[in-house]
Order: sequence, then C-alpha cells, then structure tokens
Amino acid sequence: MRKLFFISLIVVASLLVSSCCGGNKEANPGEAAIANIMNRKSVRNFTGESITQEQLETILKAAMAAPTAMNFQPWEFVVLTDHLRIEQIFGQDRQGSMFTNAGAVVVVCGKTSMMRKPFGQPEAEPQEVPNEFWFEDCSAATENLLLAVEAQGLGAVWTACYPIEPRMNMMKDALDLPEGVLPLAIVPIGHPAGEDQPKDKWNPEKIHYNRW
Amino acid sequence: MRKLFFISLIVVASLLVSSCCGGNKEANPGEAAIANIMNRKSVRNFTGESITQEQLETILKAAMAAPTAMNFQPWEFVVLTDHLRIEQIFGQDRQGSMFTNAGAVVVVCGKTSMMRKPFGQPEAEPQEVPNEFWFEDCSAATENLLLAVEAQGLGAVWTACYPIEPRMNMMKDALDLPEGVLPLAIVPIGHPAGEDQPKDKWNPEKIHYNRW
Repeated sequence: MRKLFFISLIVVASLLVSSCCGGNKEANPGEAAIANIMNRKSVRNFTGESITQEQLETILKAAMAAPTAMNFQPWEFVVLTDHLRIEQIFGQDRQGSMFTNAGAVVVVCGKTSMMRKPFGQPEAEPQEVPNEFWFEDCSAATENLLLAVEAQGLGAVWTACYPIEPRMNMMKDALDLPEGVLPLAIVPIGHPAGEDQPKDKWNPEKIHYNRW
Repeated sequence: MRKLFFISLIVVASLLVSSCCGGNKEANPGEAAIANIMNRKSVRNFTGESITQEQLETILKAAMAAPTAMNFQPWEFVVLTDHLRIEQIFGQDRQGSMFTNAGAVVVVCGKTSMMRKPFGQPEAEPQEVPNEFWFEDCSAATENLLLAVEAQGLGAVWTACYPIEPRMNMMKDALDLPEGVLPLAIVPIGHPAGEDQPKDKWNPEKIHYNRW
C-alpha cells in the first residue's frame, strides 16, 4: 500500500509539472512578443553600467528589420559608446545625465534623398530624388530598437531630434554628419536605475469603424 | 519490485517533462520578442478570411502602446471591416486586391496640432500649436501594429499615404477625416495566402561608432 501511495504521489507531481509548462504563457512566443510591446517603457535613469557588444548588435539588427518604403533602408546609426564623447556632446544638456549615465547612445539618422529611375521609365538613368518617407522608415526602426532594448531587460527613451533645427544642427556638428543625412532621434540605452512602468494608453475612442 | 520499476519509470517521465519545458527557447520571452521583430514581413496576398474582433483589439492595443512626444498620443485609427466599404474605396486601386482580400484595413491617422501651454509659462492658457512629431509617433504605432499582426500569425503591409497629396486627399474624402487629421499609413491585415519571408537587411556599414 505504501508503494501505491508513492506511485500516485509521483503521478500527481509529474502531471503538475507538465500542466504548469503547458499553461505557461511565456511558452507562447506570440504572447511573449505582444507582452514585450505592452511592457516597453521610457527609461531616463541609468546605472552608468555599459552594455555589451552583443546586446548592441541585437538592438541594431532589430532596428534594421523594420520595413522601409521601396526597401530603400535609408537609416544610418551613429552609436556612441565612448563616454568621453558622450560627456562632450551631452554634458551641458539640460537633461544631460540621461545620456551621460547611459551605457550607449544611438543616434538614428536617415538619408533624405535616394537614387531612383523616374516612374514608368525603366530604361532611364537613375536620378537623385527626395526620399519623402525617410522619417517614417527611421521611426519604425527606432521603435524596433526600443522593443529590442526592452526584450533584453535594458531601458531606453526616444528623445526627439528631427525636425528641431537647433537640436539637429548640434548633432550634425557633433557627429560630423554628411550632407543629406539628418538625425531623427537620440536614444540613450542602459541599465535602468529606477522602477519605471509602462503607461496604459489604451483608448477605444481613438478607433473609428468604417468611417470617422 | 514491479512497483519500484513503476516508480522509477514515472520519476524519469516527470524529469523529462520538466527539463524539456525548461530548455524550450520559446520559453524565453525576450528571445521570442526579438524573433517576432526579425520574422515580421510585408504580406500583400490574403485569403479573404476575416480577422476576429479580439485579434483587432490586440493589434490596436499594441499600436497605442507606442511612445509619443510629450505623451500626446496624436493617433486616430480608422478601421475598415465592412468589405463593401473596402471595395468602394480600393476596388479601382492599381493594387486593389491587397485591400479587398484583406480581413480588415487600418488607416493610421494623426492629429497635426496640439493644445499646449507656451514653454516656461505654466500659468498661461494652453494654445493650439503644430505637433511637429505626429508622424514619428504614428509611425512607431504603425510598427507596433505590424509586430502585433506577426505575433498572431497574421500578415500585413505598411502602404504609404502621408505625405503623398493625392493619396491623402483620397483617404480624407473616403473616410470623412476632420480638419487637422492626416492619414499616415494604410495597412491591410489578413490571413497570408502565400509564403512571404522576411528580408535580411542587416548591414554593419550602416553603423558608425562614436562619429560618422
């Protein structure tokens, strides 16, 4: 009888283990991806600890996985990991500590023109034309970047650059950006020092079915 | 002895179950979130099957979880689920089937102005000023939307609207958009009819360390 009791005990245990695994929401990759989007928050306070090259590369791969108009991929990323440079550029900033305590600062930039054949003229020479979508493409890349930061347990915040002229000029000078390349967003990335939480922005009034 | 054999058998089984769960990569929510970003692809061919209200709500919740400048949340979403409306609006379109075979079409719009107190004048009355960041905020929301589509095994593609005047005017008329609201992107969402794959856009030459 004691053995029978043991058997049933172990059966129950194994059933518990398997059911807990099956019921584990994190085991569903789709739900985990949605949760990551909902958990992303703006983090402005960092420990000063640096981030690894592997973390940075994962973040930049995610950024470059964003969709772009005509697959032109207009993005360029200036990655500041040298804390002397970060201090030089942002040390005097009103919210400078947001950058100087970060592990790295990524400046998401975009090419504002593209080489393209005139529409309906496949035989014509490609011409340089404005890329009217560079800021949309680079914004999508910036959001992917922020989500890859959240997914790795790091923190970041999107600080605006384009179209704020003084801010853009400061970045163009500091980073030696070439003509035709504009800075869209400045993103400090690091290890969160606080307990920032995501905002609940769900608002059904923003949804209009079939017409405004 | 037979009972002892049973006991050990069940112990081994339960150990197997628990170890397989622990070792499952998908059980790491961060990796699943990164994988979802890397797996997102542009889908233009749909089965015509509709999508559920629950799927739509998850998609729109993800969109509204994007960051926005000064937390203004300038977005508005016109969601076309009525196939007669979709046919009316996109039936004559060059790539109309992309929309008419979709389960739903989401038009991501944004408010181009905001009420704000002049900087440094906390006692002043709020004034209506242009929101210079609406298209960046709405682009981030559109990317979240696309990622939530991918996470649910659905497909979608970001088709550009802003700043293409004729396209914007067509949408403003078709959707009765009020003054000060512009359509940024038109996103057909549905069940993929083909086997679209994500593009590999990783390009280390786009990364500039510490200066251009």
